[in-house]
Amino acid sequence: MNQASRAPTAAIIVIGDEVLSGKVEELNARFLVRELRALGVAVRRIEVVPDLREEIAAAVRKASVAFDHVFTAGGIGPTHDDVTIAAIAAAFAVPVVRDSGLADLIREVSGERFFERDLRMADVPEGADLIRGEDTRHSRWPVIAIRNVYVLPGVPSILQRKFAMIRERFAAAPFHCRQIYSRESEGAIADTLDRAAADFPNVAVGSYPHLDAPDHKVLVTVDGRDEAAVVRACAQIVTGLGSAVVRVE
Amino acid sequence: MNQASRAPTAAIIVIGDEVLSGKVEELNARFLVRELRALGVAVRRIEVVPDLREEIAAAVRKASVAFDHVFTAGGIGPTHDDVTIAAIAAAFAVPVVRDSGLADLIREVSGERFFERDLRMADVPEGADLIRGEDTRHSRWPVIAIRNVYVLPGVPSILQRKFAMIRERFAAAPFHCRQIYSRESEGAIADTLDRAAADFPNVAVGSYPHLDAPDHKVLVTVDGRDEAAVVRACAQIVTGLGSAVVRVE
Repeated sequence: MNQASRAPTAAIIVIGDEVLSGKVEELNARFLVRELRALGVAVRRIEVVPDLREEIAAAVRKASVAFDHVFTAGGIGPTHDDVTIAAIAAAFAVPVVRDSGLADLIREVSGERFFERDLRMADVPEGADLIRGEDTRHSRWPVIAIRNVYVLPGVPSILQRKFAMIRERFAAAPFHCRQIYSRESEGAIADTLDRAAADFPNVAVGSYPHLDAPDHKVLVTVDGRDEAAVVRACAQIVTGLGSAVVRVE
Repeated sequence: MNQASRAPTAAIIVIGDEVLSGKVEELNARFLVRELRALGVAVRRIEVVPDLREEIAAAVRKASVAFDHVFTAGGIGPTHDDVTIAAIAAAFAVPVVRDSGLADLIREVSGERFFERDLRMADVPEGADLIRGEDTRHSRWPVIAIRNVYVLPGVPSILQRKFAMIRERFAAAPFHCRQIYSRESEGAIADTLDRAAADFPNVAVGSYPHLDAPDHKVLVTVDGRDEAAVVRACAQIVTGLGSAVVRVE
């Protein structure tokens, strides 16, 4: 057992015809990856699936079993292409039920601009948790969660606000990272990296060619939850690379 | 059978610990989505998986069966974290073999800067096609393909050059798109959209709330390969939305 493998894991499922068709830039997975990483959660999968109930359900069912936490982004709203809630209910073989508290809230907030269809946003998978934050202004609108699946909206500014309501649930030991810039190419430094990867099984060693960088050819990354191991692995690589090291960050 | 469903389909598998850890911005899927879309290929899945052979193999195997074309991005190079070739070979239960022509090319191009480890880049799944483009300067370095899986590198500028070598293979009927901007919110226009989606099964109708836009609340998209149907569906939605229409593009 290495320590890195004990980090809580997560998957992000983006429900997004608009991403698959190249119409909008994907911002939600990028945001969640960074937030979760900072919390010490290892994102192990990002999947972008179309707005189709069966495909969303299959992805959610599989991810829910394979990872500690699952976050869905998008497909919740009053229009025909918003099928995430039904899909998640199908994934867990539970019916969709209308939450009367949410329905009242929608009617109250909408006022004169209320449309019957807006009530679709009060539909939840049976047995779902409605998580409310401490910020009273926003907390009336809960984050819907069922088992280990958290249902987030597709509009980036709202997703970010919703995630803030639940982020403390995922706090774990943070990652420690070092970056080493090499003026030699990957072929020249691969043996050193291989050795460090073998010697420090709880540290992740990555290498990324930077073809257009003015002063280096490869960025080497050294990451792990065990800070002492990260420092030792980094030192070993720096020694191995010798004069190839441009700088360490 | 609706016409939209006959579009060739594709999946993009990004091999990317660096994406999952938020270290680099994902550019390759975004590029491929737009290119394929312009060619008339419907991208139905984007998956970001870690640099782990078994996980890559499972994703490739599944996508190869489910979609017409599969593109992998990343994980090909001489370092320990480059496992894509071995993973794809495992996905199809074939061995990895060293291509002697590629090995000679690597030796020749590397000259004095040759490292034995660079030869790993001459390894291919047995039975792979080595596709060379017509541009003689770059065509010496082929795109490796096996069955319906095309193996692309992770460095965006090289991926783009490689894709240019194979893009004509995927040319199909292009998509036709219209965009309608609505000053009314989703609840107010959902019925009209639902009706158009039902009346034109070969047209995809999407709706995206734009909370921060100064002049509209929702972007409605109307897409399909049958241009006449797209035009008719768009006209029906514009009529249904009436004074809510800000503009049509």
